[in-house]
Amino acid sequence: MNRVAWNSLTAPERAQALRRPAQQVGARTREAVATLLDQVRARGDAAVRELTERFDHVVLDTFAVTQVEFEAAAATLAPALRAAIDEAAGRIEAFHREGMLREYAMDTAPGVRCERVLRPIARVGLYVPAGSAPLPSTALMLGVPARLAGCRDVVLCTPPRPDGSADPAVLYAAMRCGVRQVFKLGGVQAIAAMAFGTETVPRCDKLFGPGNGYVTEAKRQVAMLEGGAAIDMPAGPSEVLVIADAGANAAFVAADLLSQAEHGPDSQVLLLSNDEELIDDVAVQVTRQLAILPRADVARRALESSRLILVDTLEEAFAISNAYAPEHLILALRDARAWLPRVETAGSVFLGDWAPEALGDYCSGTNHVLPTSGAARYVGGLNVASFQLAITVQEVSREGIAAIGPCAVELATAEGLDAHRLAVALRLEEVAA
Amino acid sequence: MNRVAWNSLTAPERAQALRRPAQQVGARTREAVATLLDQVRARGDAAVRELTERFDHVVLDTFAVTQVEFEAAAATLAPALRAAIDEAAGRIEAFHREGMLREYAMDTAPGVRCERVLRPIARVGLYVPAGSAPLPSTALMLGVPARLAGCRDVVLCTPPRPDGSADPAVLYAAMRCGVRQVFKLGGVQAIAAMAFGTETVPRCDKLFGPGNGYVTEAKRQVAMLEGGAAIDMPAGPSEVLVIADAGANAAFVAADLLSQAEHGPDSQVLLLSNDEELIDDVAVQVTRQLAILPRADVARRALESSRLILVDTLEEAFAISNAYAPEHLILALRDARAWLPRVETAGSVFLGDWAPEALGDYCSGTNHVLPTSGAARYVGGLNVASFQLAITVQEVSREGIAAIGPCAVELATAEGLDAHRLAVALRLEEVAA
Repeated sequence: MNRVAWNSLTAPERAQALRRPAQQVGARTREAVATLLDQVRARGDAAVRELTERFDHVVLDTFAVTQVEFEAAAATLAPALRAAIDEAAGRIEAFHREGMLREYAMDTAPGVRCERVLRPIARVGLYVPAGSAPLPSTALMLGVPARLAGCRDVVLCTPPRPDGSADPAVLYAAMRCGVRQVFKLGGVQAIAAMAFGTETVPRCDKLFGPGNGYVTEAKRQVAMLEGGAAIDMPAGPSEVLVIADAGANAAFVAADLLSQAEHGPDSQVLLLSNDEELIDDVAVQVTRQLAILPRADVARRALESSRLILVDTLEEAFAISNAYAPEHLILALRDARAWLPRVETAGSVFLGDWAPEALGDYCSGTNHVLPTSGAARYVGGLNVASFQLAITVQEVSREGIAAIGPCAVELATAEGLDAHRLAVALRLEEVAA
Repeated sequence: MNRVAWNSLTAPERAQALRRPAQQVGARTREAVATLLDQVRARGDAAVRELTERFDHVVLDTFAVTQVEFEAAAATLAPALRAAIDEAAGRIEAFHREGMLREYAMDTAPGVRCERVLRPIARVGLYVPAGSAPLPSTALMLGVPARLAGCRDVVLCTPPRPDGSADPAVLYAAMRCGVRQVFKLGGVQAIAAMAFGTETVPRCDKLFGPGNGYVTEAKRQVAMLEGGAAIDMPAGPSEVLVIADAGANAAFVAADLLSQAEHGPDSQVLLLSNDEELIDDVAVQVTRQLAILPRADVARRALESSRLILVDTLEEAFAISNAYAPEHLILALRDARAWLPRVETAGSVFLGDWAPEALGDYCSGTNHVLPTSGAARYVGGLNVASFQLAITVQEVSREGIAAIGPCAVELATAEGLDAHRLAVALRLEEVAA
């Protein structure tokens, strides 16, 4: 890993040290994705079938997971894994339920009742990747809030395995969330099917979930298309920033850095510490742990764009972190809670030596779909509100318009919107009559 | 206005009847906007100055509104308009404050404390158009929630007037919201300045506010650029859908339709009623009111793509409205409240004969920045949360990881993420030791 002392860097070097691995999608990828989207839009299931054969090397007549398949998945799954999915789902549900938006109403003037009512987004599409391995945890992170929101149609796509089946753990997690419209579809064809609808896949209003570069580009494109679908958030490679002090456990810190690095070669991990010895120890531990890691090749490539940064003070570390806006922020600090008010930007924060990021990925209760690539400057992670519409309502009586109508007339006049003025004035006349 | 009976229409005719005026931005506009963005990004204030001269025909040395200008604005504004701005701001603030997200914390397991903390988005950019007329109401709709969120840097851009000054009502509304970083900039150059920053305009994390086609395209483009800014929501022309029954007041309904139609030639207004006589009366009233309307030319063009639709039942009207997902929905119905549960999609709803949409535009308390072009299927209007980050936190003790660690280990193993497993397992070993 690259080691730097922050205060020895020039401003451009500092910017370079915090630069994320380039995420430019080439024009060729963009065009390839656009072509695939067009094919599915134009020819529906037939195109989806061809693309599944081409990319997943599986010939499927139907994509929909049947009742028999659901039951088989539940039956074949190891009991310990089933229990872990149930346990994680329970905590995710408890935490998400507690944070749900509420409806409210208030009289802003006599006879003027304003309120917010909530509605589920009717049709949502969840994408659960299975590139290197299936991700039942992602099915929970998407399915639990969709269920709490009360979405009417919850569609889930996950890539087929070589034998044409879906991963049983993903199916079981989907069932646990009440999701029964599951399709064995992956990649761009899955995003296209949910965005435009096909003969068998319902068209969705909003798409959720992570994916590889092609899936991300497909989501980006359908979000921009007239008649496409909205998307949850801009997605990039995963990242973690650890702030650790002299008392931190170097083995734990190294493990946390590696658990992010193993996600993919373009993941980024950063350590900021005011203790040079800790940095030394972490470097040693990273090397040691890397030696026994199955996904060491992936992690090694991610570590190339990662940094161990020596800072003068922890205050400086927080300033750097707030500018970087990490997806995951681990505070391996004595009295970590006391430092929490310093956090201005982050997707999710982990306090203390006993809070590895992996807990948030799986089962602490928080959501693991979080803003990456600096998006934590302007958006938070997934939650139930991401699956809901907040609609405002105003109910106005004769008394109400008499109370606030003149204010509207004054402003409409100032803005030169005469029909606006008239719509209020006509009613005021009627009330006065 | 075009009159149709819903049940006499074929499916394609129905789709046509609800089609919004085409919003395709031409390739030429796209390229023109991209070029302007590049210029500002590369040359900052110098480019902004040139573009202001070119498009606003004003030569400005400095764009920032000075303290003297703020004071002059407050002093010259008519007292009645000042009072109306104050009054509207008070109700908007009361309603928005009541709906603010709350922080919360809960133990999802013994020793596992999960919580949500809130932070303001640090730097936000507000755009207040002044095309046909300045819009102090928009300054309130953006500035009030930004202030409630506690954003550190609130930047507001509004086009200069021919004499190089800013509209005093907009300045007064900005002051009322505590916004003092106001720049006399409009159009693409304003969006570019806030998205990229210049020597004088701070770079913003997220941009808010309506605008013409160029502004909207500029927002769309900066939202997609690496290192650009996030935006509030996709923006299109304004629209209203009215559902009215036999007891509705035809003059009121006509005024509501026209107050939307006067916004722009591509605005769309729809009336759905189960009463043919009401439709007749509304048509007569529209013609009558149009005759005295200053912005009649604009309204007349908007009415070309608008519809008066006869339905068999009100239930049918709600099904049509939910599919259309209108920005504004007026329920000019006897017992309008009883119909509210039928509303599945809408930006903002107006109940009864005494709730013209103009009240929501100005001063009922709700926000007037709302989803257009069918976006109400997947997103709600602006609120304080639009200016905030919800960050999740987990604080875990030794007891905590002992409680939930095994669940994470099980799931990490299933997903083949060994470093994730190790980050938890190492700590479990230490706890057990």
